[in-house]
Parts: sequence; C-alpha cells; structure tokens
Amino acid sequence: SSRPAAAAGALERAMDELLRRAVPATPVYELREKTPAPAEGQCADFVSFYGGLVEVAERAELLSRLAQGFGVDHGQVAEQSAGVLQLRQQSREAAVLLQAEDRLRYALVPRYRGLFHHVSKLDGGVRFLVRLRADLLQALTLKLLEGPHIREMDGVLKSMLSEWFSSGFLNLERVTWHSPCEVLQKISESEAVHPVKNWMDIKRRVGPYRRCYFFSHCSTPEEPLVVLHVALTSDISSNIQAIVKECPPADPEDKNSISTAIFYSISLAQPGLQGVELGTFLIKRVIKELQTEFPHLQTFSSLSPIPGFTKWLLGQLSSQKEHSRSQLFTDSEARELAELTGGPIAETLKVFLSGSEWAKSEKLVRALRAPLMRLCAWYLYGEKHRGYALNPVANFHLQNGAVMWRLNWMADESLKGVSSSCGLMVNYRYYLDETATHSTSYLGSKHIKASEQVLNLVSQFQKNSKL
Amino acid sequence: SSRPAAAAGALERAMDELLRRAVPATPVYELREKTPAPAEGQCADFVSFYGGLVEVAERAELLSRLAQGFGVDHGQVAEQSAGVLQLRQQSREAAVLLQAEDRLRYALVPRYRGLFHHVSKLDGGVRFLVRLRADLLQALTLKLLEGPHIREMDGVLKSMLSEWFSSGFLNLERVTWHSPCEVLQKISESEAVHPVKNWMDIKRRVGPYRRCYFFSHCSTPEEPLVVLHVALTSDISSNIQAIVKECPPADPEDKNSISTAIFYSISLAQPGLQGVELGTFLIKRVIKELQTEFPHLQTFSSLSPIPGFTKWLLGQLSSQKEHSRSQLFTDSEARELAELTGGPIAETLKVFLSGSEWAKSEKLVRALRAPLMRLCAWYLYGEKHRGYALNPVANFHLQNGAVMWRLNWMADESLKGVSSSCGLMVNYRYYLDETATHSTSYLGSKHIKASEQVLNLVSQFQKNSKL
Amino acid sequence: SSRPAAAAGALERAMDELLRRAVPATPVYELREKTPAPAEGQCADFVSFYGGLVEVAERAELLSRLAQGFGVDHGQVAEQSAGVLQLRQQSREAAVLLQAEDRLRYALVPRYRGLFHHVSKLDGGVRFLVRLRADLLQALTLKLLEGPHIREMDGVLKSMLSEWFSSGFLNLERVTWHSPCEVLQKISESEAVHPVKNWMDIKRRVGPYRRCYFFSHCSTPEEPLVVLHVALTSDISSNIQAIVKECPPADPEDKNSISTAIFYSISLAQPGLQGVELGTFLIKRVIKELQTEFPHLQTFSSLSPIPGFTKWLLGQLSSQKEHSRSQLFTDSEARELAELTGGPIAETLKVFLSGSEWAKSEKLVRALRAPLMRLCAWYLYGEKHRGYALNPVANFHLQNGAVMWRLNWMADESLKGVSSSCGLMVNYRYYLDETATHSTSYLGSKHIKASEQVLNLVSQFQKNSKL
Amino acid sequence: SSRPAAAAGALERAMDELLRRAVPATPVYELREKTPAPAEGQCADFVSFYGGLVEVAERAELLSRLAQGFGVDHGQVAEQSAGVLQLRQQSREAAVLLQAEDRLRYALVPRYRGLFHHVSKLDGGVRFLVRLRADLLQALTLKLLEGPHIREMDGVLKSMLSEWFSSGFLNLERVTWHSPCEVLQKISESEAVHPVKNWMDIKRRVGPYRRCYFFSHCSTPEEPLVVLHVALTSDISSNIQAIVKECPPADPEDKNSISTAIFYSISLAQPGLQGVELGTFLIKRVIKELQTEFPHLQTFSSLSPIPGFTKWLLGQLSSQKEHSRSQLFTDSEARELAELTGGPIAETLKVFLSGSEWAKSEKLVRALRAPLMRLCAWYLYGEKHRGYALNPVANFHLQNGAVMWRLNWMADESLKGVSSSCGLMVNYRYYLDETATHSTSYLGSKHIKASEQVLNLVSQFQKNSKL
Repeated sequence: SSRPAAAAGALERAMDELLRRAVPATPVYELREKTPAPAEGQCADFVSFYGGLVEVAERAELLSRLAQGFGVDHGQVAEQSAGVLQLRQQSREAAVLLQAEDRLRYALVPRYRGLFHHVSKLDGGVRFLVRLRADLLQALTLKLLEGPHIREMDGVLKSMLSEWFSSGFLNLERVTWHSPCEVLQKISESEAVHPVKNWMDIKRRVGPYRRCYFFSHCSTPEEPLVVLHVALTSDISSNIQAIVKECPPADPEDKNSISTAIFYSISLAQPGLQGVELGTFLIKRVIKELQTEFPHLQTFSSLSPIPGFTKWLLGQLSSQKEHSRSQLFTDSEARELAELTGGPIAETLKVFLSGSEWAKSEKLVRALRAPLMRLCAWYLYGEKHRGYALNPVANFHLQNGAVMWRLNWMADESLKGVSSSCGLMVNYRYYLDETATHSTSYLGSKHIKASEQVLNLVSQFQKNSKL
Repeated sequence: SSRPAAAAGALERAMDELLRRAVPATPVYELREKTPAPAEGQCADFVSFYGGLVEVAERAELLSRLAQGFGVDHGQVAEQSAGVLQLRQQSREAAVLLQAEDRLRYALVPRYRGLFHHVSKLDGGVRFLVRLRADLLQALTLKLLEGPHIREMDGVLKSMLSEWFSSGFLNLERVTWHSPCEVLQKISESEAVHPVKNWMDIKRRVGPYRRCYFFSHCSTPEEPLVVLHVALTSDISSNIQAIVKECPPADPEDKNSISTAIFYSISLAQPGLQGVELGTFLIKRVIKELQTEFPHLQTFSSLSPIPGFTKWLLGQLSSQKEHSRSQLFTDSEARELAELTGGPIAETLKVFLSGSEWAKSEKLVRALRAPLMRLCAWYLYGEKHRGYALNPVANFHLQNGAVMWRLNWMADESLKGVSSSCGLMVNYRYYLDETATHSTSYLGSKHIKASEQVLNLVSQFQKNSKL
Repeated sequence: SSRPAAAAGALERAMDELLRRAVPATPVYELREKTPAPAEGQCADFVSFYGGLVEVAERAELLSRLAQGFGVDHGQVAEQSAGVLQLRQQSREAAVLLQAEDRLRYALVPRYRGLFHHVSKLDGGVRFLVRLRADLLQALTLKLLEGPHIREMDGVLKSMLSEWFSSGFLNLERVTWHSPCEVLQKISESEAVHPVKNWMDIKRRVGPYRRCYFFSHCSTPEEPLVVLHVALTSDISSNIQAIVKECPPADPEDKNSISTAIFYSISLAQPGLQGVELGTFLIKRVIKELQTEFPHLQTFSSLSPIPGFTKWLLGQLSSQKEHSRSQLFTDSEARELAELTGGPIAETLKVFLSGSEWAKSEKLVRALRAPLMRLCAWYLYGEKHRGYALNPVANFHLQNGAVMWRLNWMADESLKGVSSSCGLMVNYRYYLDETATHSTSYLGSKHIKASEQVLNLVSQFQKNSKL
Repeated sequence: SSRPAAAAGALERAMDELLRRAVPATPVYELREKTPAPAEGQCADFVSFYGGLVEVAERAELLSRLAQGFGVDHGQVAEQSAGVLQLRQQSREAAVLLQAEDRLRYALVPRYRGLFHHVSKLDGGVRFLVRLRADLLQALTLKLLEGPHIREMDGVLKSMLSEWFSSGFLNLERVTWHSPCEVLQKISESEAVHPVKNWMDIKRRVGPYRRCYFFSHCSTPEEPLVVLHVALTSDISSNIQAIVKECPPADPEDKNSISTAIFYSISLAQPGLQGVELGTFLIKRVIKELQTEFPHLQTFSSLSPIPGFTKWLLGQLSSQKEHSRSQLFTDSEARELAELTGGPIAETLKVFLSGSEWAKSEKLVRALRAPLMRLCAWYLYGEKHRGYALNPVANFHLQNGAVMWRLNWMADESLKGVSSSCGLMVNYRYYLDETATHSTSYLGSKHIKASEQVLNLVSQFQKNSKL
C-alpha cells in the first residue's frame, strides 16, 4: 500500500503478462481430447511467480485478476444455452440433445480450472493449490478479496480438492513417540484447541492412555491434514486439565480400566482444506480403529470448547437496559452478584468477565455457576444461524449426529478457557447406533438432540427470560 | 437370453427396485452442501447387487438402465438455460448471473454421478468403479451396450477416473526379483505384448540389463495400473527375441556398456482405465528415472509390434482385381513370388500369409522382404483414421512425440509376431529435445515425423502403386 | 586327482604361501589388547583364494593345512600348564593364579581362530564362514577330510557360529505370497522333506490354512536359516498328501475350524549351521506365534518322515537265516506273504521293498500293514545310537520333549515316501505343559516317552521276536 | 550401609540362595552337548532379582559373590593341566593330546559364563548384560568392587560382548529430523562432549551441513550404541562454537562448498560397551559413507576436547617450588603475568585457572596464549601412561592412525571448555592413505605422529623447561 503507484503498476502489468502466458487456452469442444498438455514450464511459471509474491495483498490481487479475467465465457454459455433450448423445442433425438448439453457443460467450465488442473500434475502441485486456497480464504477474511467471481473460484477449488482428498485416498496414521520428530513438530504446531507447551507435553499426549491420529493423503504420508486427540478413560471427563496437564500413569496401559474415549481436540492442520469434509470422517474412522483395539470400549464423547460464549454473553449484558429488571439473572442471583461485585451487575460483570481473575474467587465462581450454566445452555441450544447452531463446534458435532450431553462448570480453568467461554466446556456424546438418525434429523429438520441436563438448563433460561 | 421371459422380468424388476433405492436423490440446489451423505448401506447395496451379476449381459442391462433412467433432468436444464439467457439480456449484476450459471452447471450433473461419487468413498470403491468401467467398455465392444446415454455415462466415469488417477497421485514402482511374488504374478499376467512363459522368463525380464516399472495409485501400492518393460542395450534393437528369449549375461550390469533404452512392452493392467492418460506419462517418468540412474544414457526408442498389419495386407490382396496388374508388387517381385508359390500370387499369398509357415522358407523370406517392408511403411505412415495414424501403437507413440524411425524385417519370429504382422516390428525413437514439438505438430497438423528409411519405403510404395 | 603332480605341488605351495601371509600371528599375551587388527586385505586374501578353489577336494586340502599348521602351540600350552601347577603348589595369592590361568586359556586358542575372527568382520564374512563350514562338513562326509585337528577346527567354528546365531539375534519371518520372489525361491529350493514341484505348489504352502516361518539372522534379513512348514487343521493329520497335494479351500481361513497345528516339514537351509541349535528353537518360537494368532489352538504335532526305515528293514531281512523261523513275521503273516509274493518271503520282500510298486497292490498293502507297523515302531523306539534313538528325526523331536504319538500306515504314498520308509510316517506330539520334563528325561535317562499305540506295537514286536 | 546388620544378612542369604538356584551347573565334559538348557525361569530369576536391587552397592555385592563363588574350578584346571603335561611327555598320538587340551580348555571356563550365555538368549537378555557390565564398571570406579575375580569376570563379559557386537552385526544409521523422536531424545541425552541444550539445538545438529550417525546392533535397530557428529565445512574448524552455536544456513546444502568433514563429537551411548572397539570402527565406516555421498571430500579431521589439561596444569603449578625460577613460563612471560595478576604467578594463576572468568580478560587471554599452547602441546605429546599418550582422547585418535595436527587457542569458550582445558581444543587429522601405517607405528613403537605446529610447540616447551 505504501508502494509508489508506478511500482504497483509495474507489478500489475507483470501479473497480466503472466496470466496471459500461464493460463492455458480452452481448446474448442471438438479438440478437447486431442489437445496436448501445455508445456510444463507454462504452469510452473504461475507457481513460481505466485510463490515470489510475499505479501498477502499481492497474492490476493493476482487471484482477483485470475478470477475476474479467466472465468467462464458468458457469451459461449448463452449461445449453448440457446442451442439447448432450441433443440428441446424441436424434440430431436437423444444423441443430439445430449451433445448439446455436453457442449453447454463444457462452456460452463471456467478457464482457470484448466490452470489448476495442470498445476495439480506438477510435483507438489496439489500441495500448492491447498496453500493457494488457504491464502484465498485468509484474504476473504481480511476483506482483501470479495465478490462473486472470487467466491466462484473458491467453489471450483473446493470441489477439486474434495475430489482429491476424498476418503478413499486418506490414510489414518497414529502418532507415537516413535513417529518422526518432523511429524510431532507439525502436530504440536497445528494444535489449535489446547496449545502444546513443550516436548514433554506432546510426549504425554501421544503416550499411554492417549491416542493421537491424523489423516494424511496417500500421496503425502506423514503430512497431517486433520488431527484428532483422544483420551482413554474410565468415565466421561468433565475437566480438560485432568487430560492435558496431569501426568498420566507411567505404567503401561491397563486395558481393563478403559471404557471411554474422549475426543478432546480436533484441529484442521491445512487451512486450505476448510469445508472439505475431513473432521467428520476422521472421527468415524478413529471410532472404528479404537473399537478394534478395545473391543469393550462403549462410551464415546467429546470434551469440547465453547468458543464465542464469553463474547456472546458480554453482548447480552450490553444490550440490557440499565435499571430494568434483568432477564439474564433471577432476582436473588442479581442481588447476590451485586453484593459480591459491589456495583450495577451488568456493568461490573462486563468488567469481570472481560478478564479471567474472577475465576480465582471462590465466591464468584459459586455465584455464577447457576446463571452461566443456564445462559450457556441457551447459547449452545437456542442461538441459531440459518436455523443451525450458531456455535461452530456445536454445529460440527451435531451434524455428525452427536448429542449435546453435558455442560461442565469450570472445566477449562486455563486463561484461554476462562476468557473465551467462562471456563465452561461441553460433552457431545456419540451414541453409535443413533448418530446416523440424529445427523439426518439435525440436517433436515434442524432439530438439536440434547440430554435432560441441557434441556433443563434451557427451560430454566426460558422461564427466567420470560419474566 | 435363453432365460425364460418371466425370470428375466423378475430380474429387471429387481434392477429397477435396486436403482430406485440405491441412487441418491439429487438435493435441491440450495441444500446441496447441507445434505447428509446417504447411509453407507445404500450405495453398498448397489456394489453387492452388481457384484452378484455374473453374466456380462446382465451387468450391461443394469448399466443401461442406470444411464437411461438416472441421467440429467432435461427439464431442469432447459429451465435454468432459459434463466441464464434472460439474465443475460437484462445485464444484471455479476453475482446474479454467476449464480444462475452455477445452477445451470448443477442441473447438468447426471444423477448417477452422485452414486459413483458415494461409491468411491467406500472401502475398495474406486477399484470397483475401475472394474465397472472395464465391464462397460467390454459391453460396448460386444455391442451389448450402445447409444448416447451410455457414452455419456462412460464420459462421466472417465472424467472421474482421470481426476483420481491424476499423475500427482501415481507412484512409480520398480519390479525386481525382490518384489513380492504377488506383484510378479500380476505383471506376468498383464503382459499383453510378449506373453511371459514361465517364472524364469519373468525373472529374466526383471534382472540385469532389464527394467520393469509400473504406476500404482498411492492408495493401492503394489497394484500395477500400467507396466513398462525396458531393455538396456548398446544399440537400438531390431529383434525382440534377442530381448525376451536369450539369457542375459549372469554377470552384474556393466554400466559403461549401456547407452540405449529400448521400451519393448507397455501394457495397461487395468482395462477400466482406458483413455486415462497413463502410458504417455509412464514413459516420460521412466525416462527421467533412467537418466538419473544412467546419466550418460542418450538413446531412447521403442521396439514395437504392428498389430493389424497382416489383416490389412490380406484385405489389400483380396480387393485387388484378379488378373489386373498388381499395385502391391512390382512386376519382377510378382514373377518371383509366383514362381516360389506356384500360383496366382494374390490367392496363394493370402493362403501363405494367413499362416506362419512361410517364415521358415528362406527363399520366401528373402523374396517378401522388399515388398512387405514397403507395404508396411505405407500401412503405418499412410493409412489414417480421422487424420491420425490408423495403427493404434503408431498413434500412441506419435502422440507422445516419437519419430517413426526404423522398420525391422523378421524382428519378431514368434508365431504371434509372424501371424499378426508378418514378423515386422518398428522402432519409434524418442529424441528428448524434440518430443514436445513433434507431439504438438502431430496432434495439431496431423503431420507424421518419420526417418529417411521410412520415407524412402513410403515413396517406393507410392511410386509403385501409381503404376 | 587327475591333475599332474607338478601342478598339484604348485597349488600346495601357493596354499602354504597364502596361509603364511593371511593367518594373523598371535600377539604375545601382554600385547593382546594393544595389537592393531591385521590389514583388511590380509584376511580378504584368504577369502578370495578360498573362493577361487572350485573343487571340494582343493578346499579340503586348504582347510586341512590350516587345521594342522595353525592350531594350538602345544609347547606354550605345556609351559603354561606347568606354570599353573607350580603356582597351585605354592598357594600364591588369587591374582597370580588367575592370571596364570588366563595365560593358559590364551595359549589354548588355536591360531586359526584369529583368522576366522577377522574374516567375520569383513562384509559378508560370517556368511563366508557358514559356507566354509558347510564345505568342511561335506568333505568329512566324503572322507576327503578326517583326523582330530579337523574335528577340533570344526568344533571351533561351530562354537563361533553358535555365539553369532544365538537366539537373541534371530528374527522370525513369515512367508506369504507377498514375500519377495527371492525368498520364495530360496524356501522352495531348501525344502528337503517334501520337495516343491512348481510355483502353484509353493503358493499353496504359504496360503490359507498353512504357515511357513523361518529364522533369519538380524544382520541378513530375508535369508532363511531354518524353515518350518505348518498346516492348520481340525485334527492330527495322518497323511502328508492331504497337506501338500490337495488344494486348500480358496476361501479365507475360518479361524473357528482350526484346532491343530501340524509341523509337516522342517529344513535347515544352511548346511554350515548343522549342530547349531536352530530347529528346536524355531519350533518353540512358532508355537508361541501360533498361540498368539489362534488363542484357542491346543494341539501341536509333527507329521514326520522316517528316513532309514526301509534300509534298516532290508538289513533285517538280509540278516535273517534262510529257512529258520522268521522273527520278523508271525507264522500266519509269513504264510500270507509267501502266498502273495510267491517265493521265500525274505528274498521276495527284499525285492519288493527295494522298489515302490508293491504299494499299488491292495492285497500287499493290507498284508504288510500289521508287520510293518510293528517293525517300524521297534525301529523308532528300540533301535539306539549311544543310548539315544537311532532315527535322527525321532531323536530331534524327543530331545525337544515331544511324545512318539502315532504311527500312520500309508501316510506318504509318494515315490520317496514308499521307498525310504515303506509309506509310513509318524506323529511326534508336543504337549506344551510337559515338553520340558520329557526333554530332560530323554536327555538324562534316555527314556523315550511314547503313546499306547506305539508301546503296543513295540510289545507285539518283542513278543514275536522272542518266539 | 546404614541398613541394620540383620537386614543385610537376610539380603546376603537371599543372594546366595538365588545364585545357587540360578547359576547352571557345568555339565561333565562328556555330556556338554547333550545337556538340556536350564529351564527358562532359572536364568530369568537372576535377571529379575538383579533388576530388583536398586542400590549400586547391592548390585556390586551380588556381582562380587557371583565372581568369587562361581568362577573356575581350580582343582579341575590343575588336574587337566597335569594330564596334558603327562601326555606331552609320553608323545601320544595327536587325537589324545588334542582331547586333553580340549578338556583343559573346558575346565578353564568360569561357571558364571554359563549363566551369562543363557541370559543372553532371553528376550532382552543381551541388553541386560550390557547394563550389568555398566554397573560393574561403575562399581569399580566407585571402588565398590575390586580384586582379580571381578576383573576376570569383567574380561569374560567384555569378550562375550565383543563377539556379539562385532562389526558384522552393526548397522550404521543416520539421524535426521525425520528420525523417531525416541531416537533424537536418546542421541541428545547421550551427547557427552558438547551437551545439547534444547530441541532446536538438536534439530540443527541433524540438519544441513551436519551429519549424525550411530551404530545400532542389528537385533535392536534405533538403539544407539555409539554416536558420531560431523560438521561439513570448507576448512578445518578451529572453534567449536561456530559449529554448535551459530545457526547453519537455512538453505539446502551446496555440495560444492563442502570439502572437509569435522568429527566434533563421538560418544559411547552404552557405558557397558566400554572397551568394545566401536568408536574406531564407526569413524572408518562414516568416512566411507561420506566419501560415497561427497566423492570430492578430501579432508577429514576431528575437533577434539582436551579433558584433563587444566587439572594437569594446576598440578604443575602446585609442584613448582615457590621462588625458584619457573620452568613453565619464560622470564618475560612470568613478568607480564605477574604484572597482570598482581601476585606470585603460580599462586595467582592457580586461582585464575580454577575458574573461568580469566577468559573474559583480553589481556590475560593474550598473555597466556603462548605459554598455554606450549604447555598443552607437551601435555598431549609428552605425557604418557605405559608409553602411550596419557590423554584418553589423544590416545583414541592416535590408535586410529590420526595425526596430532593443530592446537587451537580459545577454541571452546564455553564454561566447560574453559574450565576443563583452558579453552584449548585440538584437531586430530586423518590422512586416509596413512592411517594404517600411523596406527601400527603408534601401537607398536609408541611413536606419536604430529604436525610441525605441534612439534614446534613441544620443542619450545623442552627448551624452556631445560633452562
């Protein structure tokens, strides 16, 4: 942005020049199978030019020009559409209609798809496209890119990646202390949920009573795409520090003491694969793997974070009219909290909950337990986006067919846990016989399956907020 | 076919019933990303039903019903086409047009593609689809199937397979005597060009002065898709028996004596992958591999069969008017041959060339050399199909950018060699610096690059046939 | 032997010259740890000279010279012995006596041990020594070598090999159709008991309901030292053709139908390792492996050949006085046999049993069953060498602690089976709880543990032969 | 030691009881090959009892009892010695003498060798014996054990380990960042010369321009026995911090810039293998490996610590008579140092050199350079133990045939480097053509091969000390 306009102009000209050279022309329909592949160098040029752009804004600019300038030829589409319509009216024989439709289909393929296709055949080409899509998504988030053309290009990329990263081509790999350091370093770095502090920390997470699995693509073994951490326990965990902080027994595992698998972290290691259905499939696959290793394992559940709850709650507190009766707290709760915090509760709570110190006050922790459990239950169960759960972790597990099973108070007392979700965590439980039914029901009728505990909390919330 | 009509009717009803159940419905456009995958059993039913059909005709019937009944919804296509045309006239904003085009694109996807997509995610699903396409191609060959719908389905399958078997996902594997017996057995069985006689025969073909490579998909290692056999020699071989019959030196290879790589056999091990560009890519990849192992290797050539030459020649002999002057032989040749065979040469040669005994007569071998070399040069160089070389092997190597380099007389004296191509073989030579140019030139202007020897033979033929 | 004396003399001089150069001098006791290893070439010379000797007699000659000329220095031994005795009488302090003993120990090491030691450190050196010992043993068998020096050298070699091929360094490998062809070829070639006919034969022996295991040394994986073939059955097999001839079910194994493991062939693949305890240990190890794979497997037994029985029986027939009452057959048996064979039974039986045609005569097979079972039981149970079972296979399994369990009539109808053991085979059964006890009892008190069936047959023999 | 006598007595009785039970009896000579192995449990008892002893003193006690009570039967030795002597006087035939010698040899085998032999066959048995010998050596160092019996037992163990860990059974493994974390952790922990600080430190030592190799036994891959670290440079390094501290270029290696291999650390990872010739062989093997990877590599040298130099120097300073003329420093050096340190130089230098602060004073560093280089040269070259170099690192490289090539001032400025060797390091250079000659010459005539630089420094020392 601080670059002089002249230099920027030069770069833009170089981009246009590159794209003109690198993006293969679309052969006419008749020759589509007889056209030799573009020279290797042609597409490799694009890869190295792109790799040479260091700033995300520059990459975004190039992607924008590619999306805008090398998409579908709308004239062609219109022409072929008209052809199809005309044939349809003439009720010609099937062969003619089918060919016209195929021409139309061909016309609807954006020209940049040819570039992506040929790049994918280069050494490391697919990996390059994954990174390119990660850049694209980042640029969308940063608002460096927007508009229908770029969304179309994202759709094209996502659909290509979905074909390549289809479940038939994924390998499940287990991580242990015998895995290459390279792999353990990658696993550590991609752990987004409960960050890995040091090497002893990761050694523990791959040691006894723990499992760590990832999917890799069969063409790039030892390269994690999506990672799942599991704790093997005797009951459904209600506290994450018990899993990631305390030393597990040094003794070898006693298989008989294991009845429960807790999925306590799932992370996408390749941001460019967002939206490609990997996590759901990984959980299914790991459940099968664990059932083979532990035939008597019966209970499967997540112990999941609730990102966004604190933020949502602060929003609720803000939107309450001062001096009006609170809809968030009962009268007695409000009194107790006012006493403890010594001020108008909406305001003081906003200050408290913006920090994490409150979690060290036994009294506050006790006083907030009931209202926050209730509010959080509502946040997870009642707040929606296009009819589905607003909270993305909830939405993920509910799509998989899990049940919203138990809210856990003070389940994550880490700084991150307290500040992002007031220390609350939730178990999504997988009843294997019913996940398919629940999944269909959630996706179809948008119905959330929840336990008694959760439903009780929700109805308490509803009762209170109606006052 | 001999089955009673009632039973046939029952089977057909079962097929309709199966397809109704197994082929997933296409979700409406808005829900296409929110629709849960069909239950695993749904698509697995199709796989097991299909597997239970033993006769190729039954399988063809099922495929035909799938292609006809579960293709594109033409009404939808017409509707969306009309929508696109209308928007185009209204010059609405890009977002609206792009979405309309995407709806049209979506409408153009045949419903059976969803079935194939979900089958591909099953364990062994991709392998199943490869076999299914092999059945489809066989049924087309046997005329059990035909029509535009089935050709469209073949196109859809081929394009899906092309994505999955893209070069980025193929592994080059070398076969040696240390490879698993399983692999060597598969390699032996799939050798179509020069059949493997026994285990010592295959041991030789993977031993010193020989290389055997194949591509496997990264998800199914040790499963050959396409296989290439190479002989490492000191000059361009003109005889196949020298390669596959004689014992190679038992001594370890002397790298210094190796200057030439002869590709003497390339076979597709999976008929269902026909048309998926594997062979061309394998040759390129093997050339790189050999250059790494033997930096001084400079000469690359095939030693190729000429399937169909005898058949073509017999056709030529038949179509000649009896008693007219032969256009195939010069007068002196005709005289000599008449003397040797003792009859009207067209007739007697047809008898001779239909068998393989003639190759044992030194006199006949000498007398036929000149005319057959000339005729064969013409067959390879001059006979065309849609402008490209009629002979499929020639077409393959010319597309790859090779030069039609040398015709070899009595190069394959095996029964198969004599009866299918009068003992002739041909070298297609790869000049690495020029293959890209030649390939483009052949594919574009249909020009065949040939050596002096070949061109001389061709012009002899032309001179003679003009008489 | 047909070589002219002059040439022979030249070779012998070359041998002496080589040994002088190649066998490292023994350092004086004080410098034994400070002496640098001989130059690599020095010992390598021996290896290449030896490898250049093609005839076994030449190799024997070299070994003989090495054993005679480079053994223990008897003078040194005597001197050190005298020193030890003197110290003993003086009752000197322990340190002095222990050092004297150590000097004596050092003096007792033959000089050629140094050669072997240094050869073992060369690339492929241990493998060379295994082959050298195989030559030595062959030369002993052929009487090309004899005498105490060579037996001492064999003892030295065997003890070195025993250290190196100790069980801690052996890997158990399983052979399947996925093993390298190299391995399957070696396994086939080393199968001494029931020769492998072709590749389908070996494929069957590594397929379902069969197991094939071998030990390799950890430094040379995929190189079989000793091989064990196992059939997995539902009862103790009484016929070998049922195992090696008939096709096993093509279906995958049904684990539930397997209750019994039959060891039907054990072969030493490296003759140079004779006497190094490999077979016993392999059987123990395989039993553990099978118990892990099939927890419910309970019955373990061999189905073993009885090499030497026919030979022994012919000897018995020969040594019988003509016209005297037979001690081998009962009167009624003798009558029946005389009738069937039409001659004096000792003579005619000798003729019959020297061939294998008799096994095709139902009558003879019936008539010989009782006497041959009885005689064979005695041969296995009663015939001894230094107090242990004369039959080497019996001795092997009894040492391992197996029970002589069942004699099987017409258990091996192959040419080899009929001619070497009249078609008889025997099961040695392993009762896992008792093998240790039985082994100790056999090795200590030379007592053979046998089943009722065997003991009955033995007592029938004894009763009859006492008549 | 603080244990009550009664408890100690109980433990000792338990030891005696264990040894009686666990140490196999030596079979009489005639039955030595027919004696079954002791029951597995018998020797396993010893292993688990020993493993249960936590204190090193207790282990030492058990080893002492084993060495004393289960050694050679001196009576037997005397008897067999007498037998040999008698036969020798009677000049009996060879066979008789050889057998008598063999009996004597057999009598000279200590009984505990049988225990070790059988333990070695247990799972993990060899590893156990390595640890047992490590304990034994530690106990010797701590003076918990001494005497000829224990030294004899150590000799027996060492000779057994030498057979097992013979070069033919060692695998060279290279460590990279793709090696298992397990391996990298072991490598880090066993680095004795330049301790590894953290994971980035070790990542650098296995990254570009570095090599790390180790030997493992073929039966226990991934278990380092002895480790060698190499830096790949353009000249002979004179400073260790340049190797282990500074970040190496992140770029991939440029092979052309590499002409020199610096062995900067060699560590025995298994103390129980002390004296088993591993390091020498590892260096030879790594040189071969590097020559294969870098055919143009020509210069090989160590950059070695000089442990003990400071200690020796302090000793020299102490033993100088006060007020006499210094033999360690020239008059002018003494004057300068006295000025700088402000006191009687022997005393003040002793204080200075006992610490490491002096290395931060530029003046002192300059003033001490000449005298300390000279003194250190003498320490390495002139100080001897039994005629060989006193300094163990020097002795190791000189035995290998290296040349004492260059003393480097301020080559290791770490705390450890300054305090143990006044910051000095030395290069031992390997001239590949001459190492064999040098090795023999050093081992035989005890002659040290040194460069001009070193010899000059030595002669300066001699000149000065003679004054």
